[in-house]
Amino acid sequence: MTYTSTPEVQEMKARVCALHAELLRWGLVTWTSGNVSGRVPGTDLIVIKPSGVSYDDLTPELMVVTDLDGKVLEGDLAPSSDAESHNEVYRRMPETGGVVHTHSPYATAWAARAEPIPCVLTAMADEFGGEIPLGPFALIGSDAIGKGIVETLRGHRSPAVIMQNHGVFTIGKDPKSAVKAAVMTEDVARTVHISRQLGEPVPIPQADIDRLYDRYQNVYGQQPAPKEQ
Amino acid sequence: MTYTSTPEVQEMKARVCALHAELLRWGLVTWTSGNVSGRVPGTDLIVIKPSGVSYDDLTPELMVVTDLDGKVLEGDLAPSSDAESHNEVYRRMPETGGVVHTHSPYATAWAARAEPIPCVLTAMADEFGGEIPLGPFALIGSDAIGKGIVETLRGHRSPAVIMQNHGVFTIGKDPKSAVKAAVMTEDVARTVHISRQLGEPVPIPQADIDRLYDRYQNVYGQQPAPKEQ
Amino acid sequence: MTYTSTPEVQEMKARVCALHAELLRWGLVTWTSGNVSGRVPGTDLIVIKPSGVSYDDLTPELMVVTDLDGKVLEGDLAPSSDAESHNEVYRRMPETGGVVHTHSPYATAWAARAEPIPCVLTAMADEFGGEIPLGPFALIGSDAIGKGIVETLRGHRSPAVIMQNHGVFTIGKDPKSAVKAAVMTEDVARTVHISRQLGEPVPIPQADIDRLYDRYQNVYGQQPAPKEQ
Amino acid sequence: MTYTSTPEVQEMKARVCALHAELLRWGLVTWTSGNVSGRVPGTDLIVIKPSGVSYDDLTPELMVVTDLDGKVLEGDLAPSSDAESHNEVYRRMPETGGVVHTHSPYATAWAARAEPIPCVLTAMADEFGGEIPLGPFALIGSDAIGKGIVETLRGHRSPAVIMQNHGVFTIGKDPKSAVKAAVMTEDVARTVHISRQLGEPVPIPQADIDRLYDRYQNVYGQQPAPKEQ
Repeated sequence: MTYTSTPEVQEMKARVCALHAELLRWGLVTWTSGNVSGRVPGTDLIVIKPSGVSYDDLTPELMVVTDLDGKVLEGDLAPSSDAESHNEVYRRMPETGGVVHTHSPYATAWAARAEPIPCVLTAMADEFGGEIPLGPFALIGSDAIGKGIVETLRGHRSPAVIMQNHGVFTIGKDPKSAVKAAVMTEDVARTVHISRQLGEPVPIPQADIDRLYDRYQNVYGQQPAPKEQ
Repeated sequence: MTYTSTPEVQEMKARVCALHAELLRWGLVTWTSGNVSGRVPGTDLIVIKPSGVSYDDLTPELMVVTDLDGKVLEGDLAPSSDAESHNEVYRRMPETGGVVHTHSPYATAWAARAEPIPCVLTAMADEFGGEIPLGPFALIGSDAIGKGIVETLRGHRSPAVIMQNHGVFTIGKDPKSAVKAAVMTEDVARTVHISRQLGEPVPIPQADIDRLYDRYQNVYGQQPAPKEQ
Repeated sequence: MTYTSTPEVQEMKARVCALHAELLRWGLVTWTSGNVSGRVPGTDLIVIKPSGVSYDDLTPELMVVTDLDGKVLEGDLAPSSDAESHNEVYRRMPETGGVVHTHSPYATAWAARAEPIPCVLTAMADEFGGEIPLGPFALIGSDAIGKGIVETLRGHRSPAVIMQNHGVFTIGKDPKSAVKAAVMTEDVARTVHISRQLGEPVPIPQADIDRLYDRYQNVYGQQPAPKEQ
Repeated sequence: MTYTSTPEVQEMKARVCALHAELLRWGLVTWTSGNVSGRVPGTDLIVIKPSGVSYDDLTPELMVVTDLDGKVLEGDLAPSSDAESHNEVYRRMPETGGVVHTHSPYATAWAARAEPIPCVLTAMADEFGGEIPLGPFALIGSDAIGKGIVETLRGHRSPAVIMQNHGVFTIGKDPKSAVKAAVMTEDVARTVHISRQLGEPVPIPQADIDRLYDRYQNVYGQQPAPKEQ
């Protein structure tokens, strides 16, 4: 199949590029340590950050377009070294339209202790529907990380997983939703950490978590829901 | 009664809109997680943030005007999902001119442990007149949160309450005063937290708290007091 | 004696005004909670922040000029409610050319536990010549705070004192030096706090503290020393 | 030998000057407390920050050029008081093209307890190849600090050392690489600190550290490697 770029691809390159500024703004990334990708709607084309380029230097033109196997279709630079992990998610969770990876400090601190983040905040019940789960330790360079993400998140309410000794991966219906999940992951990881420093937070009963999650997913925000969160 | 907008309503929309930037500036909010409302002076009209709109996109025109029962009188978007909690405060504490809600991290960390914040700083005695009290766990979607706020703050010196497992609500004679209270709540929640990490802070005797509170409420700032703090 | 303003007074108003931006920049203040003052060189005229004015609204014209007893000589607004504490320092430590007051969070956390900050960093030995001492608990509204500052700092190497349950006061040969001391106080208060969270920092032998302090005070920076640090 | 400036010297002055903004941006420095130097490629000329000048006032023209013994060849100001420590590294590790010194708070907190930072994050394995080692306590004013850095880093994978009770020194093939190492040092020092506050992080097996380090040093980033990281 011959690849031809489209206006939809160019638009996704602009959106993915711009969303990296949100990672910086909310303190999720250091130097070049995080990345965003997005699926061009209705296709198997993935737009992702190039490897090792600093956030200041990112432009839509530098974004890399690949197929689901990581073959570069557009772009002069190599894709992020995390691309294979993103692609495994897109291949096996076809409803996924965006993936984000960070080493945001509070969430990664939980991951280094191999502890999921317990649901003790109503905002966590809203956004994550319960705890943020822990994924396995896995080395980069194969599909091991991607498999660990998929096996942890499939069938789970949470759009975020913390990977042991590593960091955070989040998914969403589009890249902006995945970025929001990454931002909220660090926010709740921090608040729950601070709370536990001086004692044990009060758990929220499961039935209340369920009510909060249901309301937030179905009622919150403007109606009809805009295309992006 | 037919609703007609007035210059006072438009001015309050501009003020409430602008004050959201203070929530961002002082680190109280993440993504779209906090909101400010204000009562148009001398009326039962409430101006509040629309639901799910990011702070960057807020304009005075997007602000929502409702009556005390939450009926939308002006504005194309749905009001904040916290509007019912704000309205319960306005209905039952008629001297209230502004309400703020945040999940600011240090204050919310105390709330997740269900602990009031003890008064061990002269700045707390000034602003809060003692501890920052804890309100009950309550689910969104009814007037339960609003009732919990009112029952905790009525007759209390503190303009701030931390709601268990949830976050902060503050009140003021106008929206700016409520924003100041939210900013100071996070400031003292943080300092007292840090202090307690390495031992027990020294309590301030009640008589000294009373003296400090009295002086600050009656003497501090410019005389005659400006309309806003 | 009749008061007449001078170019030196106007210059000091501009310098004191501008230095408040440094308090914000380095995270030492919240809302209106800190203040800088400066003595007009060779006089008993003190320039200080007006009370209750937000940092964004400060202009050189709003600065207040007083004599050493706090009598307002120039300016339309009331001086900072901390002015009497500043003035007591200027009266009794005539070599002082600048005073700064903050509630910076890490330093105030030590103050709330009534603990001096131990000297376990070479940067502390350089700047403070040893620990940052603790001053007494004292109420605002008399010269009690000022006396506590003077009695703690007189004859001490440290340009900074943490006042129990309250916050930080620093002094300097001019306002910029006092601001630098306030910035470094928070910096070392934070690093020593973080260090002690996971164990006991290694003390620096007194003889090495003395060597570091001597070198820094006499050799560091450009020679000849500029008028301001 | 007579010194003559060259375009390469002027370019290095511009680069070293600009990199100080990265120290501020990533929160590694306070007031004037950190510095960057660079070796002009293929020479024994070192470009370094002048002493006691604030970051806002730095310009390429103010940078100081010295030989390896610290003799000033170009520039009106005295070099950083840390210049002798930088020079000892350049003299004894001739492959070094850049050196950075900071008192970044989390890394310095480990240094104050005289503890190396353990490798419990895949990002640490990537960048540092294992723990970040501890160097000895040493006084400024001789070559003691420089010797301590060299003896700790020579033959070690880590480009960073934390010097007891003092702070961080990092090295690189050029100044930008050394700045990146300083930024990543604070990042991992913070995350590992936060993790250990609530328990013991899970160690990464040495064989996995070795695999991660090898991949990152040899595969990561764009190929062919640009001149700067």
